[in-house]
Amino acid sequence: MHDVKAFELQTWTHQQLELIENALMQWVPADTKAHLGESMRYAVLGGGKRLRPLLCLAARQSIKSQDAEWQNHDSSGHQGPVESGEPGDSYGALAMDHAALRAACALELIHAYSLVHDDMPCMDDDVLRRGQPTVHVQFGQAMALLCGDALQALAFELLTPSESLVPARIQASLCRYLSQAAGHSGMAGGQAIDLSSVGFVLSQEQLQDMHAKKTGALLHASVMMGASCSGPQAFSPTIQSAFSTYAKALGLAFQVVDDILDVVSDTKTLGKTIGKDAANGKPTFVSLLGLEGAQSYAHALHQEAQDALMGAGLKDVRALAGLADLVIKRRS
Amino acid sequence: MHDVKAFELQTWTHQQLELIENALMQWVPADTKAHLGESMRYAVLGGGKRLRPLLCLAARQSIKSQDAEWQNHDSSGHQGPVESGEPGDSYGALAMDHAALRAACALELIHAYSLVHDDMPCMDDDVLRRGQPTVHVQFGQAMALLCGDALQALAFELLTPSESLVPARIQASLCRYLSQAAGHSGMAGGQAIDLSSVGFVLSQEQLQDMHAKKTGALLHASVMMGASCSGPQAFSPTIQSAFSTYAKALGLAFQVVDDILDVVSDTKTLGKTIGKDAANGKPTFVSLLGLEGAQSYAHALHQEAQDALMGAGLKDVRALAGLADLVIKRRS
Repeated sequence: MHDVKAFELQTWTHQQLELIENALMQWVPADTKAHLGESMRYAVLGGGKRLRPLLCLAARQSIKSQDAEWQNHDSSGHQGPVESGEPGDSYGALAMDHAALRAACALELIHAYSLVHDDMPCMDDDVLRRGQPTVHVQFGQAMALLCGDALQALAFELLTPSESLVPARIQASLCRYLSQAAGHSGMAGGQAIDLSSVGFVLSQEQLQDMHAKKTGALLHASVMMGASCSGPQAFSPTIQSAFSTYAKALGLAFQVVDDILDVVSDTKTLGKTIGKDAANGKPTFVSLLGLEGAQSYAHALHQEAQDALMGAGLKDVRALAGLADLVIKRRS
Repeated sequence: MHDVKAFELQTWTHQQLELIENALMQWVPADTKAHLGESMRYAVLGGGKRLRPLLCLAARQSIKSQDAEWQNHDSSGHQGPVESGEPGDSYGALAMDHAALRAACALELIHAYSLVHDDMPCMDDDVLRRGQPTVHVQFGQAMALLCGDALQALAFELLTPSESLVPARIQASLCRYLSQAAGHSGMAGGQAIDLSSVGFVLSQEQLQDMHAKKTGALLHASVMMGASCSGPQAFSPTIQSAFSTYAKALGLAFQVVDDILDVVSDTKTLGKTIGKDAANGKPTFVSLLGLEGAQSYAHALHQEAQDALMGAGLKDVRALAGLADLVIKRRS
């Protein structure tokens, strides 16, 4: 996919985004009979940074660089379903790349559904997302509700294709990671804490716990899901631990930067209404640590993520390292 | 579980409901820190017929009666995860019963989430469900939205426990069935058609298509998911086809009876506001076929379901047959 000697994050990202956008175009249904498919495509295909899919594919590639079991199978590709022997035996590296692409898209669908529901009048009541009318403004509230519900289901549909494409072991593992990250102990749980914390002063620990669930869990799952698309031995406990630390630090840094941007950016650059969190009395890292305090916290988390990554002992983690840089340096 | 010579549907149902209620009590989180767990338990544990879980367990038991691979393994139970050989080799009948119980609860969670979202003001705007205030009345709209979202995620979490409990092959298959039944080509798709059909006159074919998706898909999945918790050979193509016909006829009969009850029942018996569909200009089988026409259509579908069941060639389908009777005879 890329020259080991001359890795360019921008080139790599461009290549991955093409894969991701094409896959989403193909897998999000186009059926518009009752406007459901139309609203789903509107919610998903209208742009976005695709950070979660990129993390997923970057993690898959870093493991692939090490995966002795598969690295010589690139040309043979997928050879069909397992009938006997070790689970995953007869699947090649191409099948694992395919699994990771499905995982990448499933993660984006969960993220997209959360935005659709989050924007609704009973939640954040936002009318603008990525510079466009939000789904409920465009299609009505009832359709926005269904759109989000259907996107969540579609995520799990993408993870469970025929076993001739992806081994059952990987399918089950991906569904396990995603459901835990999306549910009551992950994203939805974080949203509930967020909801009940409006107007309250949270400690830094409480704020971190809320964000670890609300946005962190899905970012964490992005890394772990991509890395788990591999032969049974490749995603070792050492790498799992290093990736988990990387992902948690990156997830928190992402939110700290979000809070900073909500203060220093303008609506046009950010593509959504700014200053809303402060106006709504929601606690943020800026309100808690001050602007400079938040900025130095973001940099410390960035360093923690990079250190963990270097400690994984993998041949090539440049894409993951580059994405951590992006999270810190982003302007929107 | 029951004496083959003296099957009593009521006794069987009573036993299964105890299993189901206990499992739901255990698996739906009790954490009430931010009221999310509380709202989820309120939505799920507040009663209900548990038709989907019962269908699932009935289908599992009918297959078990035939499953040569497992029927002598009852006492040995689960013997640990697969390491080699045929997928499922070292899992016993108890592990398959456990998988079916997880599937049964996952189905109920999807059903429960759909009711929570369906009752919201932007959808049906119902304030009463099973004689109690609906979730958004009790917890607010934002929490009801999150509650439904978290229940859907929890369904997939239940289906993907450790592989020491349920083989990956079964986990993947259950997630595949459930995501397809819940999503854009199933329940959510049917809801969208329903939404866009208010005030229109639908043909019987269009009405059936809508219901086949809206309620039929999940009832169909209930039967197929329960039956798929078995050794690899037990759920043969012949049985799959027979069960599919049974489940589709039963699902449609269920909806026809629903429409009849909406006209002939009263709010107290039904536990929800009656006559709303007609008042909202929603097409129903009664508005299309008349009351008597709808009643005889329900009976024809019931017969179709029973015929298909008898054609499956299984030793014991009495629980499934009994549930089809219940669907026709129910008064609420």
